[in-house]
Amino acid sequence: MKITFVDGKSIEITKNETLYEAFLRTGIYLSASCGGAGTCGKCKVRIIEGKYECKNYGKLSYKDIEKGIVLACQTYALSNLKVEILKESKLTIGDKIALSYTKKLKELFLSYNVKISPLIEKLNVELPQPTIDDNISDLQRLNRYLEEKDLKFMFQRKFLKNLSDDLRKNNWQFNLCWQKDNMEALYIEPLNSKKDYGIAIDIGTTTIVVYLVDLSNIQVIDVGSTYNSQIRYGDDVITRIIYATENGKLKDLRYAVVSDINDILDNMFRRIKIEPSAVTSAVISGNTTMTHLFWELNPAYIREEPYIPTANIFPIWKASEAGLHIHPEAPVYTIPCVASYVGGDIVSGVIATKIHRKPEISLFIDIGTNGEIVIGNNELLVTAACSAGPCFEGGGIKCGMRAIEGAIELIEIIPETFEPKLKVIGNTNPIGICGSGMISAVSEMFLKGVIDQKGKIIKNSNSNYIKEAEEGLEYLLFSSSDRDIVLTQVDIDNLIRAKGAIYAGISLLLKELGFTYEMIDKVYIAGGFGNYIDIKKAIIMGMLPDLPEDKFQFVGNTSVLGAYLCLLSEELRKEAEKVSSMMTYIELSIKSNYMDEFMSALFLPHTDTNQFPSVMSFLS
Amino acid sequence: MKITFVDGKSIEITKNETLYEAFLRTGIYLSASCGGAGTCGKCKVRIIEGKYECKNYGKLSYKDIEKGIVLACQTYALSNLKVEILKESKLTIGDKIALSYTKKLKELFLSYNVKISPLIEKLNVELPQPTIDDNISDLQRLNRYLEEKDLKFMFQRKFLKNLSDDLRKNNWQFNLCWQKDNMEALYIEPLNSKKDYGIAIDIGTTTIVVYLVDLSNIQVIDVGSTYNSQIRYGDDVITRIIYATENGKLKDLRYAVVSDINDILDNMFRRIKIEPSAVTSAVISGNTTMTHLFWELNPAYIREEPYIPTANIFPIWKASEAGLHIHPEAPVYTIPCVASYVGGDIVSGVIATKIHRKPEISLFIDIGTNGEIVIGNNELLVTAACSAGPCFEGGGIKCGMRAIEGAIELIEIIPETFEPKLKVIGNTNPIGICGSGMISAVSEMFLKGVIDQKGKIIKNSNSNYIKEAEEGLEYLLFSSSDRDIVLTQVDIDNLIRAKGAIYAGISLLLKELGFTYEMIDKVYIAGGFGNYIDIKKAIIMGMLPDLPEDKFQFVGNTSVLGAYLCLLSEELRKEAEKVSSMMTYIELSIKSNYMDEFMSALFLPHTDTNQFPSVMSFLS
Repeated sequence: MKITFVDGKSIEITKNETLYEAFLRTGIYLSASCGGAGTCGKCKVRIIEGKYECKNYGKLSYKDIEKGIVLACQTYALSNLKVEILKESKLTIGDKIALSYTKKLKELFLSYNVKISPLIEKLNVELPQPTIDDNISDLQRLNRYLEEKDLKFMFQRKFLKNLSDDLRKNNWQFNLCWQKDNMEALYIEPLNSKKDYGIAIDIGTTTIVVYLVDLSNIQVIDVGSTYNSQIRYGDDVITRIIYATENGKLKDLRYAVVSDINDILDNMFRRIKIEPSAVTSAVISGNTTMTHLFWELNPAYIREEPYIPTANIFPIWKASEAGLHIHPEAPVYTIPCVASYVGGDIVSGVIATKIHRKPEISLFIDIGTNGEIVIGNNELLVTAACSAGPCFEGGGIKCGMRAIEGAIELIEIIPETFEPKLKVIGNTNPIGICGSGMISAVSEMFLKGVIDQKGKIIKNSNSNYIKEAEEGLEYLLFSSSDRDIVLTQVDIDNLIRAKGAIYAGISLLLKELGFTYEMIDKVYIAGGFGNYIDIKKAIIMGMLPDLPEDKFQFVGNTSVLGAYLCLLSEELRKEAEKVSSMMTYIELSIKSNYMDEFMSALFLPHTDTNQFPSVMSFLS
Repeated sequence: MKITFVDGKSIEITKNETLYEAFLRTGIYLSASCGGAGTCGKCKVRIIEGKYECKNYGKLSYKDIEKGIVLACQTYALSNLKVEILKESKLTIGDKIALSYTKKLKELFLSYNVKISPLIEKLNVELPQPTIDDNISDLQRLNRYLEEKDLKFMFQRKFLKNLSDDLRKNNWQFNLCWQKDNMEALYIEPLNSKKDYGIAIDIGTTTIVVYLVDLSNIQVIDVGSTYNSQIRYGDDVITRIIYATENGKLKDLRYAVVSDINDILDNMFRRIKIEPSAVTSAVISGNTTMTHLFWELNPAYIREEPYIPTANIFPIWKASEAGLHIHPEAPVYTIPCVASYVGGDIVSGVIATKIHRKPEISLFIDIGTNGEIVIGNNELLVTAACSAGPCFEGGGIKCGMRAIEGAIELIEIIPETFEPKLKVIGNTNPIGICGSGMISAVSEMFLKGVIDQKGKIIKNSNSNYIKEAEEGLEYLLFSSSDRDIVLTQVDIDNLIRAKGAIYAGISLLLKELGFTYEMIDKVYIAGGFGNYIDIKKAIIMGMLPDLPEDKFQFVGNTSVLGAYLCLLSEELRKEAEKVSSMMTYIELSIKSNYMDEFMSALFLPHTDTNQFPSVMSFLS
């Protein structure tokens, strides 16, 4: 049987395979963080024509099912089919954008002037064969060789288990792969082994991103990402911590994230055609809660005053223990965290922006599922977390989505009609709105009078774009027979709270340091905004301080960037540890003036308009 | 229902429990290395009266079944029963003997003048509670404390996993239990913890012995032993190595020995009523093959020229990894081996006899399933292995058994009738003959003319004790309606080959060193002979050199003794490693003159009678 796609291309399918399997076989990759088990609900396709059998509709809504949407992993063809792969189901679309970006990464790494030193070191060993007169044990023979090189290793059982066969199979000449951190001999490989790969992983509360790195030339050769399926246990870290403290649920959370990573990896390995065992090191970077959940450490005390994580600097462990589908002995390094609400993702951000190496004062803002802020330079680093929530990643926003193809990323509003002009990633019809789109929308709505200074939508019966829905007023961004894309009052309230939390955090941190906004030389904006954030719009909204635009730099996902850098260099791993130790964490929630700062920041752009002179001159 | 024993005592039994379970419940312990699964065939009992149902006869012979013998673990009572527990099924009988012996162990340890330093060290820690102003992570808090004490530990995930809960449960005051060898923090325990125990394990080819040691007073408080159920895969190390090299069978062998140890432990813990987790360290001692099988290391190259083991000095691993049913984090130390056929049991023997500490020349002979020899002093140690086979442990001898209750341990033959007078361990009716009994028997038979110089039984129709059986002549030791206890010609041939191998080994080793028998100050005899070996008889037989009797000392099972000593002292563990490194191993099989020595030693006492002046004077 045949499956024909909307674009006219077609593939063969047999009656014994699911659509998902047929797609995989022919190189079409769908998002499916459950690996085709029918549980994640991500591999949605719409059957336009033909007979089929869907064994299980999983999490699909009744509305989806009515439209002919099925889960590809649960559906078998009973005749020739015409099929549309829903945009949000395509795995590689957003990743393609990321991949083009990663070409700059090699340059970035080289700019650090550090030696390439991955987590695995290799030693070329040649041993004399044993004879009846030189009949010491295999391990003694190896140790005798190592002693001559002044090396002393730890050996675990797994290494010993294969030692005698490994030595003989390789005719006593091989590479000994070891790990410097604890001087452990990990495994033996033949002299003519294929090249090694490493993976850099950003575990975000909302999304997970994996870079596959060719260690022979430090190129990122593939990128994969997916939603963190812990989302099913709660959108934010607090809900997940509460869930984790229920009996046994911690394991579920760990399982969810490890499965997501492995699904990305498995797809990658199929695509690139490399063996999982060729990946011999990994670095993970995530906020403190994500890191604890990955490690299966009880996160309860992160949430309870005085907010204490189990660890901030983590030992290196092995892939087999971490559960990653790569070489079982591969060392897995964890980017160190700072405190309960400032994690390895922020340390990664500092490393990736080199704030810690420069004398000038930098402000670093990571807008992910939360907002974290760092201010400082090569002598001093302070940091804080503001509970901005996940809205800029699409969470809690009715039509919110990640910055992938189909996401509205820029909006201009025509003053007379309030009609929005949209820029959509990939120049297709929009399917939702991403973080940069939201910022653009709110500031445009404010400038053009769709909303007032408090962010409330102003009732206007003259405009077709301001509508009254069940839950209140909403602004229509795009309308199609399928679905309307809107920003609701609730969405806007959420966005203003989020921007207010970020701005209040920055203000308070500066006050703590006795700094003023003018002292800031550089502002780095990190986060899942795709390629783009309109700084001017973010300033108008009052999320970012009113500084000259050339001081701002958008740096993208610095969490995975830091993981990439630390994957390649021991020196940078040491710098990350130093940064995590030297950073002073300020707990905003207990500062008496935080609430005032926050309340003042709930206006557009701010209650204290003096802080936004350029915006005010613009408005007047 | 009731079970009445031969001695009149009785216990209750319900219809839902097996005899084995009823016995256990009432404190009667049977040998059952399979733990009651019906597979080991060791828990034999005879039903004298009453109705019962035996679900599975397992390995019982037809002859046994005819006599009413059943497996206690497979049998349910259907009425009141009268039951006889077969002597060989009782677990603790032989062990009681060993236990009385172990009272001297504490004295022995104290004579070394070393500090008590088990594998686990404990550090009393008191941490300040975290506050909002001192909010570093739990691990950082602990590390800050340790740094003040100049300690730097490794932490594995298991430790981190429970850290935050452990700290709070113990109110920030606790013992940190750690392992010095690799400076790893293992676990946290409350300040008022119960005492710790350790186990010393001898893994013999034929038998396994476990000492349970109270680490608070270094007393051995219980002893357990069982046959090594690897026996089902072959009696000697060579057969087992061959078996292990078949696909996947290595795991079976490891499983067998680990299960045996755990069965002993489980019984012990029930008996003594301690929690498995109270046992916080273990030392194993065994020959090189047994050690490799316990570690699941491929033993194939032990058997192939040039006879290379994977390792001789082993890392410390954890009980959870080793599969022992004790505290999962308990360090398990392996007594180092020397070469493929001289293992940790012999290093243990050296440590236990202090040969390596004394200037005088000692000869150490361990007669277990093989015979190993050490000659030397505090400056020089040479060692060799002779393939004596398992006969002194009862293997390959028709009525052979271990030195437990019911074993003939001494024989005197009345010259006229050849009637044997027997001494039986426990002064009961004999059920077999143990190693010391065999030595006693062969030398008496030789002295009294039952056998000739070559060990052949002399046909004698006048004696009721020399019988012609299907397989040839045999000597009757004891006759009962149940079963005759005999020594067959095949048995005697085996014994003479064994003693010849040992004597030839000693001779060759002395020659290699340029030593004579007269230079030997002390001869230590180790092995599973129970309490007793008649030195004079062993000299008459030509197994031991003809030296003054006061130079000989029987030292029992030095393998478990060495394990006990190393369990208690780091210094002795270091000495064991030094001994294993300094000992020179001589491979007898490749020495051209070994065969001559062996052939000469197949006579009683020896072809060269000059070597046995005292025996010759005795004979003439």
